[in-house]
Amino acid sequence: MQEYFNTHIEKSFPELKPSKFLLACSGGIDSVVLAHLCNNANLDFELAHCNFQLRGKESDADEVFVKELAKKINKKINVTSFKTVDYVNLNKVSVQVAARELRYTWFSTLQEKNNLKYLVTAHHADDDLETFIINLSRGTGIDGLKGMPYNTDVIKRPLLKFSQEQIIDFAHVNTIEWREDQSNTDTKYLRNKIRHQIVPLLKELHPSFLDNFLNSQQYLEQTATIADNALNTIKKDLFQLNGSHYKIAIESLKALNPLKGYIHGLFKFYGFTEWQNVADLLDAMSGKEIRSKTYRLVKDRDYLLLEILKENKDEVFTVLKEDIFVDNPIPITITNVEEVAECSLNTLYIDKETLKYPLTIRKWKNGDYFYPFGMHGKKKLAKFFKDEKIDVLSKEKQWLLCSENQIVWVIGKRADNRFRVTNKTKHILKFEVKE
Amino acid sequence: MQEYFNTHIEKSFPELKPSKFLLACSGGIDSVVLAHLCNNANLDFELAHCNFQLRGKESDADEVFVKELAKKINKKINVTSFKTVDYVNLNKVSVQVAARELRYTWFSTLQEKNNLKYLVTAHHADDDLETFIINLSRGTGIDGLKGMPYNTDVIKRPLLKFSQEQIIDFAHVNTIEWREDQSNTDTKYLRNKIRHQIVPLLKELHPSFLDNFLNSQQYLEQTATIADNALNTIKKDLFQLNGSHYKIAIESLKALNPLKGYIHGLFKFYGFTEWQNVADLLDAMSGKEIRSKTYRLVKDRDYLLLEILKENKDEVFTVLKEDIFVDNPIPITITNVEEVAECSLNTLYIDKETLKYPLTIRKWKNGDYFYPFGMHGKKKLAKFFKDEKIDVLSKEKQWLLCSENQIVWVIGKRADNRFRVTNKTKHILKFEVKE
Repeated sequence: MQEYFNTHIEKSFPELKPSKFLLACSGGIDSVVLAHLCNNANLDFELAHCNFQLRGKESDADEVFVKELAKKINKKINVTSFKTVDYVNLNKVSVQVAARELRYTWFSTLQEKNNLKYLVTAHHADDDLETFIINLSRGTGIDGLKGMPYNTDVIKRPLLKFSQEQIIDFAHVNTIEWREDQSNTDTKYLRNKIRHQIVPLLKELHPSFLDNFLNSQQYLEQTATIADNALNTIKKDLFQLNGSHYKIAIESLKALNPLKGYIHGLFKFYGFTEWQNVADLLDAMSGKEIRSKTYRLVKDRDYLLLEILKENKDEVFTVLKEDIFVDNPIPITITNVEEVAECSLNTLYIDKETLKYPLTIRKWKNGDYFYPFGMHGKKKLAKFFKDEKIDVLSKEKQWLLCSENQIVWVIGKRADNRFRVTNKTKHILKFEVKE
Repeated sequence: MQEYFNTHIEKSFPELKPSKFLLACSGGIDSVVLAHLCNNANLDFELAHCNFQLRGKESDADEVFVKELAKKINKKINVTSFKTVDYVNLNKVSVQVAARELRYTWFSTLQEKNNLKYLVTAHHADDDLETFIINLSRGTGIDGLKGMPYNTDVIKRPLLKFSQEQIIDFAHVNTIEWREDQSNTDTKYLRNKIRHQIVPLLKELHPSFLDNFLNSQQYLEQTATIADNALNTIKKDLFQLNGSHYKIAIESLKALNPLKGYIHGLFKFYGFTEWQNVADLLDAMSGKEIRSKTYRLVKDRDYLLLEILKENKDEVFTVLKEDIFVDNPIPITITNVEEVAECSLNTLYIDKETLKYPLTIRKWKNGDYFYPFGMHGKKKLAKFFKDEKIDVLSKEKQWLLCSENQIVWVIGKRADNRFRVTNKTKHILKFEVKE
C-alpha cells in the first residue's frame, strides 16, 4: 500500500521530485499521512501549519504536534497564528471562508518568500464527495459540483484519488500518529452527517462508487471548461472596452439562448452571482445599477456599463487664485490673458468681473442647472446630459467649475452664458484643462 | 393544494389548454394524480397505457384499473401490450431501456395518428433526484446529471417541480385511488434504497433541499447547452464534409483543450461514448477504425474520417459479354472499337486477346498486386494506394476489373500493363465508366 501511494506520487506528480514545495499540515490524519508519504519518497519540502486559535489549548497542541513531526522527518516548518474570529467579524464571512482566505494568502506569501514552487494539500476523494453533497443541498452550479482541481500549475492534491478509508488503513499499517480533528467549522455538523450517515449508503449503491463519482466530476470539470472557453470568446465580442469601463449591447446579450445561463456565466467572472438581478437590469430604467463586491453594472439606455468599483468621493475642491495650476481633482490652469485665442473644449475664457469667489470644482447633482453658452435661457444639467447622450458613467465623472453657487463651466463640455467674454469685458481669465 | 396544482398547470403550461394531448398513465399514483389534475383543469387529452407483461396478472389488473379511470373521467384510452422480455433478449438491453424505447416509440405513433400535439408525463422531483444519484453512482457526464427537461416542444412534465410527498398528500386529500407500482425493473432495488434510505437523509441537510437540487439541475442544463452550442460551432469548422463522410484534421482536433472533454463532446453526437477510444485513434496506424452503433471513425494519416455505417457487401460481380452495359456495382459499358480515341481516367482500352474469362468486378483485398501501366514490373495495390495518397474510405470504395485472377484495371485510376493495346493488337475492347 505504501508502495502504491509512493508510486502514485512519483508517477502522477513527477514535477514534485526536482522542485521544492510547501506542504500544508494541520496535524490531522490526511496531511500527516501526506507528509510521511512525501518524506518516504525523498521529496524536498517545507511544512506550513496555521493556528486559527479557534479551540484554545487544542489548537496549541496541534501546533506542538506538527512541530514535533517536522523535527522527526527533518523538515523546516513554518507556523503562524490567525485571529480568525476577528477576521470573521470584520469581513462578515463564515469561519470556514475566513480560514480558507487566511491560510491561502499566507501559503502564497510563504511560497514566494521561501521560493517554493508548489503548494501540496491533503484533500481526498471523500472530502470532495462531502463538498459536492453540501453544495448540492444549497443549490449550486457546475462550479460547485465539479470538485477541486487535482493538479494545477500551483496546487497539487496527490491524495484526491484516495478514499478516507485508504488513508486510515495506511496510517494504521505504518503506525503513523495524528491529531484528531476537533475543528468546529460551520459545515462540521453537515459534514459529519454526510460522512457517517449518507456516504456509507451511497457507497453501497455501486462497488466503485467513489471512483465513478470522481470520473463524473472530471467530466463536469471538462464541460465547465468548454463552457468557460465559449463564454470568454463571446465576452471578447460582447464586452467592448470603452475607456475605463465595458459597454455591453443589451440587444446582443438578449439574443443569447439560454439567456439565464449565459448571463450567469458571463457575469460570474465579475462577482455577480444572482443572474436574476442582472436579467432585471436589462429592462430597467436607465441609470439603475447593481453592484457585486468588486464591480458595478449600470443600465444606460441600450447598454449595460460594467465598471470596477472605486472609492467614490464627491468632494468639493476650492480654487482660489489666478495664475495657479491645480492638479486635484483634475489638472487645470487659471491664467490672466489679454485675448481670446485658440478655442477648444478643454479651454474656457470668461469675463473675470462676472465671477464671485470662492471658485470651486465639484461633481454635479440633481437639480443643477446652467445657462448654456449659445442658447437662450437656462437648462437643467440632467436634460443637457440626456440631449448630449452622455452615458451614466461619464455623467458621474463630470466635474463642474462653479462661481459661488453658479455653474461657470461644465468642464470640457459647455460654458455658461453668464460669464462669457463680451465687448464690455475688461479682464479675461483663461481656464485650461490638461489632458 | 388542488388549487395550487391546477394554477401551476395553467400558469406554467398554458399551451396545454388549447391543444389536445396524450397523457401517459401507468395506473401508479403519479400518473393517476396527473390525470385527475388535467381533468379538473378541463383540459382535452387522451390516456395511453402500456402493458409491458412483466408481472402477469398484476399487469393486467393495472390495465383494467386505467381503463376504469378513463371511463370515470370520460376520456378516450389507448392501450397496448408489449412482449418486453423478447425485446430485451433481442436487443440486449436492460428491461428499463426496453420499456422506455417501446413506450416512447408507441406514444409518438399515437400522437401522430390521433393528432395529439404533446405528450404529458408524470415525472416528479424525487424521480429526478433518484435518477441523479443512480447516474452518479455509475459515473456519468453532465447529460446524466442535468435531469429531465421540464418543458420541451413535445414533452411536458407538469409535476417535475413537485415532490413525491406533495403528490401523495394531494391523492389523500382528494381520496384518489391508484395502483401500487409493483414493477420490477433493474433499478428497482437501487431506487428503493435511494428513496427510502438516502433521500430522507439528504432532505434533512437543508429545508429546501429538493428545490435547491432542482435549481442546481437547471444550472447544469444551462451549462450543458452553452457547451453544446460551443461544440456545434467548433464542429462546423472542424468537420469538413467530403462527399459522404466528414474529414477531421487531427492536428486541429489535438489543439483543443481539454482534449478529453472536447473529444467526448464532439463525438457523443455520433454515438461514441468512450472518449478514450477516439483519443487512441489519433495516434494509431493509418487504417485503424472504431465503430459506434451508427458511425465508423477511421484514422487516415493526418485525418479522422467519420462515416455513417452502411451494410458493406464485398460481392464479386461477373461481366461476361461485350457490347453490354452493366449497371451494378458501377455503371460500365463494354464495346468493341476500331481505334483508341479520347482517353480519360474513366476509359480503358485493352487488347481483347489478352483477356481471360470470366471478367469480374470486385473490391480489392490485401495482397492484390498489378503491373501499373507506364511502369516496369509489378506493384502491390496497397503500395499503389499509399503512393497515390488515396484515403482509407476511397480505398474501400475502389472497384477492380479482373481477368480471371489478374487485375486489368484499378477502375478510374490506373490500367494494367499486361492488357495494353500494342501494335500487335488485333481487337480493341473499350471499357467506359459512366459518372
